[in-house]
Amino acid sequence: MERVGRVWCEFAALPDGVESGVLVTINNGSIADIDVDVARPDDAMPLDGLTVPGLANAHSHAFHRALRSRTHGGRGDFWSWREQMYTVALRLTPENYVDLAAATYAEMVLAGYTAVGEFHYVHHRPDGQPYDDPNAVGRALMSAAERAGIRLTLLDTCYLRAGAGRALLPEQQRFSDGTAAAWALRVAQLGDSAMVRIGAAIHSTRAVDAAGIATVARFATGRSMPLHAHVSEQMDENAQILQEYGCTPTEILAQQGALSDRFTAVHATHLRPEDVTLYAAAGSTCCFCPTTERDLADGIGPSDQLAAAGVPLSIGSDQHAVIDPFEEMRGIELDERLRSMQRGTHTASSLLAAGTLNGYRSLGWSDGGVIRVGSLADLTTISLSTVRLAGVSKRALVEAAVFAATASDVTDVIIGGRHVVSGGRHTVIDVAPALATSITALFGEGNS
Amino acid sequence: MERVGRVWCEFAALPDGVESGVLVTINNGSIADIDVDVARPDDAMPLDGLTVPGLANAHSHAFHRALRSRTHGGRGDFWSWREQMYTVALRLTPENYVDLAAATYAEMVLAGYTAVGEFHYVHHRPDGQPYDDPNAVGRALMSAAERAGIRLTLLDTCYLRAGAGRALLPEQQRFSDGTAAAWALRVAQLGDSAMVRIGAAIHSTRAVDAAGIATVARFATGRSMPLHAHVSEQMDENAQILQEYGCTPTEILAQQGALSDRFTAVHATHLRPEDVTLYAAAGSTCCFCPTTERDLADGIGPSDQLAAAGVPLSIGSDQHAVIDPFEEMRGIELDERLRSMQRGTHTASSLLAAGTLNGYRSLGWSDGGVIRVGSLADLTTISLSTVRLAGVSKRALVEAAVFAATASDVTDVIIGGRHVVSGGRHTVIDVAPALATSITALFGEGNS
Repeated sequence: MERVGRVWCEFAALPDGVESGVLVTINNGSIADIDVDVARPDDAMPLDGLTVPGLANAHSHAFHRALRSRTHGGRGDFWSWREQMYTVALRLTPENYVDLAAATYAEMVLAGYTAVGEFHYVHHRPDGQPYDDPNAVGRALMSAAERAGIRLTLLDTCYLRAGAGRALLPEQQRFSDGTAAAWALRVAQLGDSAMVRIGAAIHSTRAVDAAGIATVARFATGRSMPLHAHVSEQMDENAQILQEYGCTPTEILAQQGALSDRFTAVHATHLRPEDVTLYAAAGSTCCFCPTTERDLADGIGPSDQLAAAGVPLSIGSDQHAVIDPFEEMRGIELDERLRSMQRGTHTASSLLAAGTLNGYRSLGWSDGGVIRVGSLADLTTISLSTVRLAGVSKRALVEAAVFAATASDVTDVIIGGRHVVSGGRHTVIDVAPALATSITALFGEGNS
Repeated sequence: MERVGRVWCEFAALPDGVESGVLVTINNGSIADIDVDVARPDDAMPLDGLTVPGLANAHSHAFHRALRSRTHGGRGDFWSWREQMYTVALRLTPENYVDLAAATYAEMVLAGYTAVGEFHYVHHRPDGQPYDDPNAVGRALMSAAERAGIRLTLLDTCYLRAGAGRALLPEQQRFSDGTAAAWALRVAQLGDSAMVRIGAAIHSTRAVDAAGIATVARFATGRSMPLHAHVSEQMDENAQILQEYGCTPTEILAQQGALSDRFTAVHATHLRPEDVTLYAAAGSTCCFCPTTERDLADGIGPSDQLAAAGVPLSIGSDQHAVIDPFEEMRGIELDERLRSMQRGTHTASSLLAAGTLNGYRSLGWSDGGVIRVGSLADLTTISLSTVRLAGVSKRALVEAAVFAATASDVTDVIIGGRHVVSGGRHTVIDVAPALATSITALFGEGNS
């Protein structure tokens, strides 16, 4: 992955709008200078099309990629899908997971994602015993991100119980450190690096009790870490928490000190108005995963209420039924259109912010997700010469990117000043064969 | 567009399931022979990946392609979007429309569509006066389809009024023949050919009065033509018809003799249970257009009730915000998941039938949309070696195609035995520049 010095963008989405002829000077992984409306200097690498800030995939379970298109037999709901997911989780090792995650992250980069938040909870051996390095799987994910060239926030996830008063199921043993204190001791051994941030996560209010939530929240606050949690993805989850605590998942998180401007509620599908108010007051983010929420029959979250209350939205591809940031961004608005029968709740610009700035901030990279001097040099370029984008208005390029582009339209991706995707190809990994090999190996199938 | 003699499919979706090593012999545009589980003969063209029956786009307004990503400014609903659409409709001429439609149809073929139903209502000059050939625009659409190599059903559409008791608006003049009888006289001048069928359409129960519906229905019945109509896309449409007739749009269509097994209700979003019963009894089809219904904030139609009643579903890309048959097929199920919070209402096989067999039948090509001896030689091949399909199960290839493929994964398309897309490229039209040129010309913009 070659380091880039200067790039010249035919069009670039800057904070105040799209400009043409944008010369971006990169130094030490950051943006050192920006000129607009200039001709391309000979030594600047051309980026034809529209360059947007690199896109943040704020919610990923990398291993779910193996399940793509394999879970559609018969009827069912989220809970029956989860059984199939657990079967794959039990097959993971640090060795096979690094290959699968590297290929999955490389697919993300090809699609235009430049940062990923890995919501990581498969910590230990299948029987729950730690590996010799108790962070072996987490370190495998860091290696995978490094191979793929993507910026990583490892959201190390606390998972302690099957539900209120219910011990872990056998297939959940490997997710648990036993106690939140033991989780904290393990996570304390991990550290940030140039391309990696360590963050914390509470799997859900089902899987971590109130005292555990408080412990994880204190740990994250003490280290100013991002803190994420699955919140109210399913109505049955709300019912369980109502029975246990007499309140909503959001309320128990708030009571235990989890909400802040470093907190992200993932999904946030079945919220009450009081929950929205809590997130707005705390400055928290809600991460929508529209392609997953469709696939898993979760329902449509209240993006209208959240936006009206000023809660920033971010996006995630979650189980990777689809890896396409453009689908996720427009999915927020299109699902809202289906629900409300109104167009234009979210502007294209606000959806692009969900895919870029808000996601970067949610993952602890407050200096990224925007093209300005001093920001991380993470850039994604889409061609305007494909059949999907041909004929779009040059005066509405953000609309075109958000509502008409697909992952296939991404030609170039720069992450931390390194050229990771060039001409639509990953510069290091041959992605499709890498995916096929790692997935068929996981299922014990021949890779034909 | 070269004629193909024999093709060998690595995998092919046959009526009873997916087979490997499928040798298809083509003669005179039809399938003359099929062998399964055979090695590739040297003289057979290889089609690596999964070959499915050619996909039918059962509802298209070709000129709407020009609006892609240009209608997302501000808030609004279906009716405000329609104003923008009328602006483009007024700019069409037979000369510019042939270019735009050829490029749009070529984009469809690249995406795997092999047949299109063009719901055509821009018949006359902007002031309503006929062209010298009163079918000049319809013939332009036939020329466009011929250029693009796609099979066409021209659904010539009757449009008479702005609503109950309301004369046409100025911008609607060019849609109207004045009376249904005049519409019939004009359409009677058009005839079928090898790659073209003439069908009839009632724009909507808003735009054609009861007597007009009866006239169009009699004309279609007399000639055994397909008959389509927009039905209950908007709740306000239902309210208007309830006020005029005291019944639903479906009921007034039924009363006037429009329903039969040649009838297709397009959208069918806001139906009553009685409407579903009427379609089931008549053997009619309902054409869902999920990517449009999202975009225009129409809502989610009752695909569960329709399927349970045995009503065949088909798909259409309608306004072409997206041209991707895989998105439309899975959209039926994924929107239903969002509504019902249940997975698996529609199987992958039933969704593939919606995209193929049901669409062909709905467009009057009852000998197409299936790979069997005697059928039309219309075939679409998707690669299994892209990042999207890598790692899918060879035992669930229809699931993979329907839930994970995109238009970008289509490598080869054969229509009537002619090789129209090869290696992901249209063999005659350079599609993206053709789209850009025709669209920017329509808007009077430079094609930069």
